[in-house]
Amino acid sequence: MEKKYTLGFDFGTESERTLLVETSSGRIVAGAVARYRDGVIDQKLPGSNERLPAEWALQNPQDWLHCLQITVPEVLQKSGGRPEQIIGIGIDFTACTILPTRHDGTPLCFLPEFQKRPHAWTKLWKHHAAQPYADRVNKLAEERDEAFLARYGGIISSEWSLPKTWQVLQEDPEIYQTADYFVEGADWVAWQLSGSLFRNTCGAGYKGLWHKSDGFPSQDFLAACTLELSTLFTEKFAGPMAAPGEKIGELNQEWAEKLGLKAGIAIGGAIIDAHSAAIGGGVTGPGTLFMIMGTSTCHMLMAEKEVPVAGISGVVEDGIVPGYFGYEAGQAGVGDIFAWLVKNGVPPAYHEEAEEKGKSLHETLSEKAATFKPGQSGLLALDWWNGCRTPLVDADLTGVMVGYSLQTSAEEIYRALIEATAFGTRKIVELFRTSGVKVNSVCAGGGLTNNKLLLQIYADILGVPIEVAASPQSSALGAAILGAVAGGAHPTIADAADKMAPPPERVIRPIGENQIVYSRLYQEYERLAVFFGENHNSVLKQVRMLR
Amino acid sequence: MEKKYTLGFDFGTESERTLLVETSSGRIVAGAVARYRDGVIDQKLPGSNERLPAEWALQNPQDWLHCLQITVPEVLQKSGGRPEQIIGIGIDFTACTILPTRHDGTPLCFLPEFQKRPHAWTKLWKHHAAQPYADRVNKLAEERDEAFLARYGGIISSEWSLPKTWQVLQEDPEIYQTADYFVEGADWVAWQLSGSLFRNTCGAGYKGLWHKSDGFPSQDFLAACTLELSTLFTEKFAGPMAAPGEKIGELNQEWAEKLGLKAGIAIGGAIIDAHSAAIGGGVTGPGTLFMIMGTSTCHMLMAEKEVPVAGISGVVEDGIVPGYFGYEAGQAGVGDIFAWLVKNGVPPAYHEEAEEKGKSLHETLSEKAATFKPGQSGLLALDWWNGCRTPLVDADLTGVMVGYSLQTSAEEIYRALIEATAFGTRKIVELFRTSGVKVNSVCAGGGLTNNKLLLQIYADILGVPIEVAASPQSSALGAAILGAVAGGAHPTIADAADKMAPPPERVIRPIGENQIVYSRLYQEYERLAVFFGENHNSVLKQVRMLR
Repeated sequence: MEKKYTLGFDFGTESERTLLVETSSGRIVAGAVARYRDGVIDQKLPGSNERLPAEWALQNPQDWLHCLQITVPEVLQKSGGRPEQIIGIGIDFTACTILPTRHDGTPLCFLPEFQKRPHAWTKLWKHHAAQPYADRVNKLAEERDEAFLARYGGIISSEWSLPKTWQVLQEDPEIYQTADYFVEGADWVAWQLSGSLFRNTCGAGYKGLWHKSDGFPSQDFLAACTLELSTLFTEKFAGPMAAPGEKIGELNQEWAEKLGLKAGIAIGGAIIDAHSAAIGGGVTGPGTLFMIMGTSTCHMLMAEKEVPVAGISGVVEDGIVPGYFGYEAGQAGVGDIFAWLVKNGVPPAYHEEAEEKGKSLHETLSEKAATFKPGQSGLLALDWWNGCRTPLVDADLTGVMVGYSLQTSAEEIYRALIEATAFGTRKIVELFRTSGVKVNSVCAGGGLTNNKLLLQIYADILGVPIEVAASPQSSALGAAILGAVAGGAHPTIADAADKMAPPPERVIRPIGENQIVYSRLYQEYERLAVFFGENHNSVLKQVRMLR
Repeated sequence: MEKKYTLGFDFGTESERTLLVETSSGRIVAGAVARYRDGVIDQKLPGSNERLPAEWALQNPQDWLHCLQITVPEVLQKSGGRPEQIIGIGIDFTACTILPTRHDGTPLCFLPEFQKRPHAWTKLWKHHAAQPYADRVNKLAEERDEAFLARYGGIISSEWSLPKTWQVLQEDPEIYQTADYFVEGADWVAWQLSGSLFRNTCGAGYKGLWHKSDGFPSQDFLAACTLELSTLFTEKFAGPMAAPGEKIGELNQEWAEKLGLKAGIAIGGAIIDAHSAAIGGGVTGPGTLFMIMGTSTCHMLMAEKEVPVAGISGVVEDGIVPGYFGYEAGQAGVGDIFAWLVKNGVPPAYHEEAEEKGKSLHETLSEKAATFKPGQSGLLALDWWNGCRTPLVDADLTGVMVGYSLQTSAEEIYRALIEATAFGTRKIVELFRTSGVKVNSVCAGGGLTNNKLLLQIYADILGVPIEVAASPQSSALGAAILGAVAGGAHPTIADAADKMAPPPERVIRPIGENQIVYSRLYQEYERLAVFFGENHNSVLKQVRMLR
C-alpha cells in the first residue's frame, strides 16, 4: 500500500515549523523552521520610526505566509518529493493572536492607507495593552452575573479577543469600522489556503468566550460594554465553527502552486499550540492531565461532562478533541520563578562553577539541589511570584518563602521553588478530582522536562508517574495529526494519535519515601495558601497596597 | 587643680583594649590594644595535638595578664607618664567566661597535672558544648516551677555558668572536685590585681542566676539536677558581691610593678562588656534603651522596679548601674542575617560594582536599597533566620519573607531584612512599654551604626530619634568610668558618665511619612508573627520537624 503523508504547520511566537509526517506510523520524515522577519513587533511598526506604547505586541501576517513558502518546499525537498501522497494539512497557532481583515481576507495592515496605524496590525497573544478593557469586561460581567464568567474561573484575560477588539474600537474607531472581520491567525492562514473562513472551536472557546450551546456573549452584554460593540460577535466574528481536525476545505490552486503542493489537499480545523501539543503527546481523551511546562504551566484535561471547577482558565466543548469537554488550568509562574532566582539570587561562586563545568546555572543548581532529601532544607514556598492563576485567579498575590536559616543556600532555595510549583500543580489536580473531573495519569511536555530533578519532584509530589512527551515538536506533530484526520487517514483524533504519537520518552515514577514527606509538606503548603490566599484582607494584599 | 586619670580594661573575645582617660572631661588620652596569643581555643589545647570536640571554645587566662603587661605600659608611654595621677581601674569583660581555680586564685590550667585536661581551661562565653546541661536545667526548673526562670524569659542559656560548671562535673569530675572556685574572667583579673575575690553583680546576675534578694538558686534545686552539684553556689561561687564601679580593693604591689603603676589605685567592681558600652554611651539611668547592634543585637534598659517582661534575657538589680534594675533583651540574628544574604543571595553584577567602586557589598546594597521608599518593594520579612530571642525565646523558629515578585531585586531583599530587624526591635520596645517599663529614647552602638540607611529605617520604624554612641571604644570607656567612680573622682556612675561620656555622635530623626507607612507594615509584621510564632503547631515548626 502506498504511504500517505500529512503536513503540520506550527505557528509559534517567533517562528513557524513545518513537519512532514507519515500517517500510518507517525514517523517524522522531514521538518523545517523559519523565523518571522518582523518577529514580535513591540518597538516600532515595520517601516515606521514611531515607538509603540508599553505592553504592545504585534505581528505581521505576511511573515506567516512567507515562512510557509520557505518551510514547505524545504520539507518536500528533504523528503524526496512526491507531493501527491500528501493528504492533509493541520495548523496550530498561538492564541489569541487576532487581526482585522476585509471581507476577502485582506488584513487591514496590508492596505497602504492603514499601514501606519498600529491597530491595523495583528495583536499577538502577549499584547497586554488591553488590560483596561479586560477590567471593564470583568466588572460588567460580574455585575450582570453573566453565565460565561464561571467557565473562565471568573476572570477574562486581557489577552483575549473581546478586550483586544474593544481596544481597537476605543482607540482607533476607523479601523474597527473598516474591519469586516476579526480573525485568529490560525483561521486566517487556513482561510488563505482554502478560501474559506472557519472559526476553530479551540481558539473561539478558550480565547473568544464562545460556547457550543450558548454561543457568544449576548448582544445585550456587548451593548452594556459600549453600544458600538453590540454587533461585534454577530458581524465581525461571523463564520462557521470547525472543531480541530474537522475538514474545512481543500488547498486552493494559488497556494498549491506557491508551496509546491497539489491542490485539493484536505485542510483541518486549527487548534491552539498548547492544545496541539497534548494531541502530539498522545493525550486525546479523558483522565490524563497534560502539562506544558515552560515560563508558566498550562494544564489540559478532557472529560465527558462540563462541571464547574473553581479558577480554571476555561472549559470548552470540542476545545481540544471533538466529543469531549476540554479543561484548561494554569500556573502563572513556573520556569519564570526559577529564572528569577538565577538572575537575582545566585552568588558568584555558582556562576564560576557553572562556567568551569560548561553547564548552565540551572543545571548546576539542580545538581546541587538533588543532593538534598525532601524536607531537608526546612524551606517551604508559595509559588505566587507571578500571582496565582488556578485556583485563586489573583494576579495581585505574591511569593512567600518560609524556613530560612543562616545556613540556607541558593540551591536549597532553588529546590524549594521547584517544590512550590509542584505543590501548586498538586492543588490543581486535587481541585479537578474534588470537582468530579478524573485525573488518572499525568503527561508533561515543554522546556522544563529537560530537568530530571524537577520531574522527580513532580512525580513525588503528585504521587503519580509522569510520562514525558517525547518531542519538542509535539505541537507540530499534533497539527500533522489533525491534518491526517482531515485527510481521512484515520477516523478520529484518538485513532490517529494512537498510531502517530510516539510513546512517552521517559516515565518518572514516584519514590515512596519522598511521597510521604511531601504529603506532609503539602499540608503545610495548603495552610500557607489558606492564610495568605483566601482572605482579601490577607497580609499579602495589605503589604501590596502599600507599594 | 591637678588632673586625674582612670584606666579602662576592656577584655573582648580576641583582644584586650586599655584606655587612659581624664576623669573630669572624659578625654581619651591614650589607648592600646593587644591580641590574645592563644586567641579563641577551639581546635587544640596549647601544647597539645588532640582536637577539641565541636562547639568548644576556651581561653587562656595567661593571655589576659600578658595583654595588660603590653597595653598598660604602652598607654603610659603614649600619655607621657605620671602614673601617680591615675586614681582608678575599671574592668569590662565578655561573659559568661568562666574558669576553675584553687583557693589562691591559681587557674587549674596553670597546674602541670591539669594542662592537658580541656575542662581545666577557661570556658569562653561562646562555648556551646554545655547545651545538654542547659536543656536539663530548663526542664527541671520548669517542672519545679522555679521562680528564677521568669527573670530570664523562661530559658537558661547554655552559655551561662550553671550549664558550664555542670558540664565540668559530669565530664571531668576530678577537675570539678579540685576547683575551689569557678570565677568569671572579669572577677579573676580583678582578683589578681587586688588580691581580693569579688563577684560582679552584672555577671552573676545575667549569667549566674543570682538575685539580689533571693541569691542563687536553692541547694534543693541543684541537688535535683545532680546530688554532687548541690554545694556549687555556696562553695564554688562563694565570695562577696560588688556592683559595677563599687571599690573592691586596691592595686597590689606585685601588679603595680608589673604594669608600671603605683600600688593603691582603686579597683572597681567589673561589668559585662555590652553593659559597659551602655555606660560608655552615656546611658546610666531609666528610660533610654541602649542597643549594641552587631551580628546580633543586645538591648539594655534600666528601671526603678522589677516587673515581669516576657522573653527578656534577664533582669538584674544593680546589674548595670547600682540602684536600678537592669533589663536585657535580645535579637538572635541581625547583622548575621544581612551577612547571610551577602554570602548566599547576591548575584555577580553587584560584586563587580562593589569592587569597581571600592566599596563593600553591604555599602553597595545599602545605597541601592536607599532609593526605595518604605513599602515600595512589597516585601515583608520575619527576622527569625537565627530563631527569635525576645519575645518568643525560641531558637527553632526560622525566617520568613513574603511579597516576592518576578521583579524583586537583591537590594529590595536587603532592605526588607533591615526593616524586619527593626520591626523586631519595635516589638521589644512595645513589650517593655506594655509591661510598664518606660522607653523614652533609644541609643545605638556597635558595628551596624556605620550603616546610615539602617539607622534611618530604625528611627522611622521605632518612631523615636536614634542617638548614635560616638565610639567603637564605648565598652572600654565605660570601664574607665567605673574606675573613676571607684577612685572617688565622681560620686556615682551617672555623675561620672555625665562628665565623661561623649555626646551622641549623631542623632537620626524619624521621617513622618515613613513612620506612617511603617506603622501599617508593622501591623502586618505582627500578624505574621502571630501566625508563625505563637502556635506550637505552626507551619514553621511542622516544616522544621521534617528536616
